[in-house]
Amino acid sequence: MSQYRTFTARDAVAYAQQFGGLDTPSELVDAQEVGDGNLNLVFKIFDRQGVSRIIVKQALPYVRCVGESWPLTLDRARLEAQTLVEHYQYSPQHTVKIHHFDPQLAVMVMEDLSDHKIWRGELINNVYYPQAAAQLGEYLAQTLFHTSDFYLHPHAKKAQVAQFINPEMCEITEDLFFNDPYQIHERNNYPAELEADVAALREDAQLKLAVASLKHRFFSQAEALLHGDIHSGSIFVAEGSLKAIDAEFGYFGPIGFDIGTAIGNLLLNYCGLPGHLGIRDAAAARELRLNDIHTLWTTFAARFQALAAEKTRDAALAQPGYASAFLQKVWVDAIGFCGTELIRRSVGLSHVADIDTIADDEMRHACLRHAITLGKALIVIAGRIDSVGELIARVRQYS
Amino acid sequence: MSQYRTFTARDAVAYAQQFGGLDTPSELVDAQEVGDGNLNLVFKIFDRQGVSRIIVKQALPYVRCVGESWPLTLDRARLEAQTLVEHYQYSPQHTVKIHHFDPQLAVMVMEDLSDHKIWRGELINNVYYPQAAAQLGEYLAQTLFHTSDFYLHPHAKKAQVAQFINPEMCEITEDLFFNDPYQIHERNNYPAELEADVAALREDAQLKLAVASLKHRFFSQAEALLHGDIHSGSIFVAEGSLKAIDAEFGYFGPIGFDIGTAIGNLLLNYCGLPGHLGIRDAAAARELRLNDIHTLWTTFAARFQALAAEKTRDAALAQPGYASAFLQKVWVDAIGFCGTELIRRSVGLSHVADIDTIADDEMRHACLRHAITLGKALIVIAGRIDSVGELIARVRQYS
Repeated sequence: MSQYRTFTARDAVAYAQQFGGLDTPSELVDAQEVGDGNLNLVFKIFDRQGVSRIIVKQALPYVRCVGESWPLTLDRARLEAQTLVEHYQYSPQHTVKIHHFDPQLAVMVMEDLSDHKIWRGELINNVYYPQAAAQLGEYLAQTLFHTSDFYLHPHAKKAQVAQFINPEMCEITEDLFFNDPYQIHERNNYPAELEADVAALREDAQLKLAVASLKHRFFSQAEALLHGDIHSGSIFVAEGSLKAIDAEFGYFGPIGFDIGTAIGNLLLNYCGLPGHLGIRDAAAARELRLNDIHTLWTTFAARFQALAAEKTRDAALAQPGYASAFLQKVWVDAIGFCGTELIRRSVGLSHVADIDTIADDEMRHACLRHAITLGKALIVIAGRIDSVGELIARVRQYS
Repeated sequence: MSQYRTFTARDAVAYAQQFGGLDTPSELVDAQEVGDGNLNLVFKIFDRQGVSRIIVKQALPYVRCVGESWPLTLDRARLEAQTLVEHYQYSPQHTVKIHHFDPQLAVMVMEDLSDHKIWRGELINNVYYPQAAAQLGEYLAQTLFHTSDFYLHPHAKKAQVAQFINPEMCEITEDLFFNDPYQIHERNNYPAELEADVAALREDAQLKLAVASLKHRFFSQAEALLHGDIHSGSIFVAEGSLKAIDAEFGYFGPIGFDIGTAIGNLLLNYCGLPGHLGIRDAAAARELRLNDIHTLWTTFAARFQALAAEKTRDAALAQPGYASAFLQKVWVDAIGFCGTELIRRSVGLSHVADIDTIADDEMRHACLRHAITLGKALIVIAGRIDSVGELIARVRQYS
C-alpha cells in the first residue's frame, strides 16, 4: 500500500522509524525539511537529543524552475537509489548508504551526513580537504570499473543497461549540456554583456561538430554505470572523508562524462576564485585546484588499471595494455565533456555558486568569460591534450 | 494458449492458415520442412497447386553443433521478428516481410521467397546480381540511420535499446568473433596444416589489442539496431531484388559491425574464388567482388548522408559535417570488424561454404591462409585505411 503521496514531516518520522534500521526507532521524534524544495523533499530526522540521525528523501513529481512547473518522472528516485546501491557495493567508503527505498513512494531512507559539508561550498570558502581529490578518483575508479565490460558478466551488464535506462534525466543533460548553449534558447541564462561571447559559440562550426560528437557518445556509449552528475555539489566532504550523493542521473554512459564533470567543476571553481579571494590567495588556491585535478586523474587511472590487471573477467579485454589504451580514450572524452560542463554552467540554465555568487558584476563577467573561453578550447583541442600535465599547462595558458 | 511445443508439418499448415493473412487460407494444404534443423524449423507451406505460398519458422530450444546439444533461448524468435519488423518499416524493399509472430511459440509466419536464392550460393557459383551490392548498401543505410540517434527520439531509442537487449545471441558473437580464434579453444576448427598461422594470431599482441578494442565497441556502442549477422547466407537475391532474413542477432550495436560483416563476406568469397574457378574467371570474379564492395560502401554512405541531411531530428547531430565525420569512424570500425569476420570464419567454429567447399586440400588451405592474412592486416591497419579505394588497394596488396 504505497501509492505516491507527498510526505509531511510527521510521515517522514514514521517512515524513518519503520525503515531506518535503527535499534531503537522510537528515539526518532522530529523532522526538518532541508531540501531546496525544487526537486525533492529532504528531511533530517532527529532523535530526542536533537541529533540528526537519518535522512528521508522524497522525489517531487515536478521541478520548479524557469518560472513554471516542469513535470519530472518519479522513477528518478528508483534510479538514484539503485545507482547508489550499486556504487556502494564497490565503493562503500565514498558512497552514501541507502537503508531502504520505495519506488512507488519515490522515497529513500539514507545515511545522515550532517558531520560533512558540501564540497562546493568548501571550495568557494577555500577550505581545503587534502584527501578529497584522491578519494574522488578512487570512487570513480571503483564504481566505473566494476560496472564496466571489464568486470561485469556480459549478461549482467546488459540486464543492468536495461534496468538503468533513464530517458527523462538523460534528456535534461542532452539538452542542457549539448544543445542550449549552442543555440538561442529561452532556458539560457547569461548577462547581456556576454552576448558576443555566446553568439560566437553559436557560430563556431568546429566547436559544434565536436559537441555533436560528444553528445553522440553520451547517447550511445554504454561503458559503465555513471553517477551522471558528479559535480562538487553532489559530493559531501569531511576531514578524511568524501561521499557521493544525488545520483538521479545514473545510467550506462561514457566513463569520460563522470571524469569530465568532476574535473570541470574544479575548473569552474578555479575560474571563480579571483572573485572570492585576493590575488595572492586566489593564485595559491588555483594551484591547489590544479593539484587536485592532477591527483584526481592519476588516482583514478592508477586504480582503474590496477583493478583491470587484477579483476578483468573478459578474456579479450584482459589483453595486457588494453586497459591503458582504453583509459587514453576515456581521457580525451573527459576533456571534451569537461569543456561542455564549463560552458553550460556559464551560459545555460544551471549555474554554479563558484561564479554566480561573485558580487562584482565586472569580475563575475570576467570569470564567466574565462570559463567559456577555457571550455571552448578544451572541447576543440581535446584530442591533442594527451596527459593531465598537458591539461594543466593549457589551463594556465588560458588564465 | 500458446505454450511452446515443436511444430509438426500439420501444425505449420494450420498455423499458416490462421496467421498467414491469405484471402483463401483453406488453399494451404501441405508443408515441407526445409531448414537444416540445427537451429530452427523452417516450413514451406504449399497450396493445392503445389506452389509454396508462405513460410512458417520456429526456433528450437537448442543448437545441434560441436557434437552435442547447446541450449539456446527461444526469445531469439521474438528478437528476430521484431528486428525484421523494425527494418521492414524503413526498408520494405529489402527486408523479408513478417506477417505474424508469437513469442511463446517462438514462431513467425513470413513472406515466401522461393523465387529468390541465397546470395552466398550464387556468389560461389559466380552468378552475378549487378544490383545486389547497391541494394545491400541501401538496406543498411535505411535500417541503421532510422534506428540511430540521428533519427529516433531519445526516449524511443532508449526504450528500443532495452527491448533489443539480446544477451545470449550477443554472447555467441562475443565468443566466436573476438575470443576463440585468439586462444586455444575446442570450438576452433581449422586444418592442422594451418597451426603455425593460427598460433601466430595467439601471439600477436598488437592484433589482440585491436581485437579487444573491437570487442569493447561491440559490447558498449549502442549506435543503431543492427541486423547482427548480415553475411551473404542471410541474404536472398533475385534479378533486381535483395531481401535480408535471419535477424536473430539483432541488437543495438556499432553500425560498423553490420557493414564489416557484409564486406567481410564478399572478401571471404574473394579469397575462395580460385578454388572454384579457373585463373581468368577467378580474376574477373574478384574484380566484381571489389566493385561490389566499392558500391556497397558508397551507396551506404551516400544514402546515410542524404538521410542525415534530410531527416536528422537531433539538433546537435544535425550540425553540417557531423554525419560525414561520423561515417568516417563507422568506416574504421567496419574495416576492423571485417577483419574479425575473415579470421573467425577461417579459424573458428563456423566456416563459409565459399572456402569450405573447395575440394582440393592445398587450394583450400591457401584460401584459408589468404583470409587469415588479410583479416589480420585489416584489423591492425584499420585506422590507416581511410577510404574504400584504399581498402581495395590493400586487398590487392594481400592477394
